[in-house]
Amino acid sequence: MTTEPTWSGSAGPTAVSPAGRVAPGTARVEAFSDGVLAVAITLLVLDLKVPHVEHGSVWPPLLDQWPGYAAYVTSFLSIGIMWMNHHSLFVMIARADRKLLFVNLLLLLLIVTVPFSTSLVAEYLTHPGFNGKIAMAIYSGQSFLMGLGFAALWGYPLTHPRLLADGVDVAAARRAFPRFASGSAVYGALVAVSFLNPAVALALHVSVAVYYAFERLPVGQRAGGHLG
Amino acid sequence: MTTEPTWSGSAGPTAVSPAGRVAPGTARVEAFSDGVLAVAITLLVLDLKVPHVEHGSVWPPLLDQWPGYAAYVTSFLSIGIMWMNHHSLFVMIARADRKLLFVNLLLLLLIVTVPFSTSLVAEYLTHPGFNGKIAMAIYSGQSFLMGLGFAALWGYPLTHPRLLADGVDVAAARRAFPRFASGSAVYGALVAVSFLNPAVALALHVSVAVYYAFERLPVGQRAGGHLG
Amino acid sequence: MTTEPTWSGSAGPTAVSPAGRVAPGTARVEAFSDGVLAVAITLLVLDLKVPHVEHGSVWPPLLDQWPGYAAYVTSFLSIGIMWMNHHSLFVMIARADRKLLFVNLLLLLLIVTVPFSTSLVAEYLTHPGFNGKIAMAIYSGQSFLMGLGFAALWGYPLTHPRLLADGVDVAAARRAFPRFASGSAVYGALVAVSFLNPAVALALHVSVAVYYAFERLPVGQRAGGHLG
Amino acid sequence: MTTEPTWSGSAGPTAVSPAGRVAPGTARVEAFSDGVLAVAITLLVLDLKVPHVEHGSVWPPLLDQWPGYAAYVTSFLSIGIMWMNHHSLFVMIARADRKLLFVNLLLLLLIVTVPFSTSLVAEYLTHPGFNGKIAMAIYSGQSFLMGLGFAALWGYPLTHPRLLADGVDVAAARRAFPRFASGSAVYGALVAVSFLNPAVALALHVSVAVYYAFERLPVGQRAGGHLG
Repeated sequence: MTTEPTWSGSAGPTAVSPAGRVAPGTARVEAFSDGVLAVAITLLVLDLKVPHVEHGSVWPPLLDQWPGYAAYVTSFLSIGIMWMNHHSLFVMIARADRKLLFVNLLLLLLIVTVPFSTSLVAEYLTHPGFNGKIAMAIYSGQSFLMGLGFAALWGYPLTHPRLLADGVDVAAARRAFPRFASGSAVYGALVAVSFLNPAVALALHVSVAVYYAFERLPVGQRAGGHLG
Repeated sequence: MTTEPTWSGSAGPTAVSPAGRVAPGTARVEAFSDGVLAVAITLLVLDLKVPHVEHGSVWPPLLDQWPGYAAYVTSFLSIGIMWMNHHSLFVMIARADRKLLFVNLLLLLLIVTVPFSTSLVAEYLTHPGFNGKIAMAIYSGQSFLMGLGFAALWGYPLTHPRLLADGVDVAAARRAFPRFASGSAVYGALVAVSFLNPAVALALHVSVAVYYAFERLPVGQRAGGHLG
Repeated sequence: MTTEPTWSGSAGPTAVSPAGRVAPGTARVEAFSDGVLAVAITLLVLDLKVPHVEHGSVWPPLLDQWPGYAAYVTSFLSIGIMWMNHHSLFVMIARADRKLLFVNLLLLLLIVTVPFSTSLVAEYLTHPGFNGKIAMAIYSGQSFLMGLGFAALWGYPLTHPRLLADGVDVAAARRAFPRFASGSAVYGALVAVSFLNPAVALALHVSVAVYYAFERLPVGQRAGGHLG
Repeated sequence: MTTEPTWSGSAGPTAVSPAGRVAPGTARVEAFSDGVLAVAITLLVLDLKVPHVEHGSVWPPLLDQWPGYAAYVTSFLSIGIMWMNHHSLFVMIARADRKLLFVNLLLLLLIVTVPFSTSLVAEYLTHPGFNGKIAMAIYSGQSFLMGLGFAALWGYPLTHPRLLADGVDVAAARRAFPRFASGSAVYGALVAVSFLNPAVALALHVSVAVYYAFERLPVGQRAGGHLG
């Protein structure tokens, strides 16, 4: 085995410089992650089913499947905003080693199952009995795990600063890390809410997604810096 | 929270310059949008179903599902031309902030449901009774909303010109905006046509798509300028 | 409307030069086409169905669906080689106008339906009676249309040479065009073979795909030139 | 036909240099392969089915389909790590000819069927009788073939060194090749284990994937070299 301080040669096609040398970077990891996220977010549409009616209007059964539309919107926004934040992190990460790639792969493994948990919520949210609560708790628990995945994806380079981009203020980023990682706690709370009222929990998921769309993750960047 | 005048560091891997610095831009937003649109346009094929016949010829049932083929062609052209126009806009947009990303995400959320509404039209266009009209009105209404989405995607940077590329003539673009945004009105009219004759409404959708393929959006560019 | 000699500003993110200017090109058209082809080729796997057996071995029903595997391999190679040839053409095409984009979109519209016609062949190839011949004739007819699409995609820039890359020998390319376009005739012949013996026609499709993988399209390039 | 020493003009959009010349490379092959792998890995989620219950809890049927979750995790990690290794090889491969493209296409043809064999394992792993062993043996046999595909993808440029990047130590790489290629033997052994105990074979697949995530392929690079 050869030494592998960083996956520095893996910058990918997009980082080929004019001189033909491969520049260090994370281009191909980001491109692969983007592709996976783009496919996963689009597969959500397969959860929307066309109702089959022989007689009578298709309008009532279309309206009846509102939990499917609500779950679609929630998950679309969630994955879209995870894409934004994944991107924000990789602006700060300049190099990737095998462990970082593996953590990223585990995070993608979780995100790709969102169409499954979305389908579960669409099917059971309004069921009488306990199944709506189970479905929504699974959905929230998955978000909790994805939050931990993001914490790992950012915690790893913070403890291996040679992977970070030059402009990153490591000390500030480390001070901000507890707040960054505490985002998962919100999803932990949503697991509890899911057992109380699953529809409210779904609505809160939308709120959290919109919040993260506009509130930047506390990654400890320098104000006004040219990084992300 | 840090200041975030623009998402200028988020240019993505494709904009890494030889000197290794990240250049401002919208590369990764465009790449993600391209990916989503490419998946959505290809998922349309899943609406084409192979008919199952035990005895007799497969030819008649294949012909009977002509609304499916018509809806496929219509939606393929629509998404393809939305891709062209999305691209034309982003030639003019040089920087993205969080609000622009969010508007773009909402537009994608609408476009990704096109395979669903296409499936609805394929299933109900030739149904006796009112369901064909409902299906086609939903399809047209969705196009209306996507038109509003494009208006928002272009209206936002027009009112925040620091996001625009250098060569854009902002005054001309603002004068052209009402005409740009009025494209949605066509789809509003198609909602009405859908209730009169859904098959005619579908044919008009094809016409509108082909029209937009060749007629450039009035974005107020300088004639002969090097921008898109 | 403004003048639009070529879509020269639409080079896309990948062609951003170090000076930040957008370079002319077809980068984003190629990226979108690549994405569509990559999704379409991968969706072919959805035609492979897991047989459901309650008792007895799953092995016989797995073997019984050999037409599905044969159709999968044929279509995978066909789309893969269309990707190669699409790419070879775009090495020669330096600029795109709206008409070229539209021709490209129509070609993609045809290619994306390959998973549907593949599924049709998988279902009916070994059916008794005429349905296998209908399915295979549709498959071959689709290839014929895709051949015409490629002829249009290359014929258009040949008659609008300002769209071509600098190194292209236009006169030689025009002389080679009839041979290039005659590839469609092969697929026309396969429509006839489909009515005689559909299994033979499917095998011939594989042969043609492998032939095109290794035999370069006669695009009239200069021997030894730096273009693809 | 013209001479085609290498597919050197096919570098694709991402390798357009500032001077506008097309640089040699494998950028577009990598981008297409990345796209296919990203779609294939994401389609794995379609194997996860929402159970339908009218009465009673959805929890037991969700737990009962644990083989589906296990197969999903195994295949997700396998494809993810094949992506890593595919990328590692292409850092070493600077040029592609038609034969290399064809070998790469055959490898992708195998990888894209992973969602099918995953579904087979998910359905039959815990079936009584022989079907679980058949399903797992097919899964392992497919991994064996993919191992051979990787050996061909690396063996071909090793015997055609003009395709290799400048920094590659060809002699060292050739010495390392037997060890590289012997990875397939592990999967051959897993075919045998599949017949003894399919659940153990599935667990061993996870172990092998994780091993390859961290253990670099013996490609004969120079220690400390700037290549991947």
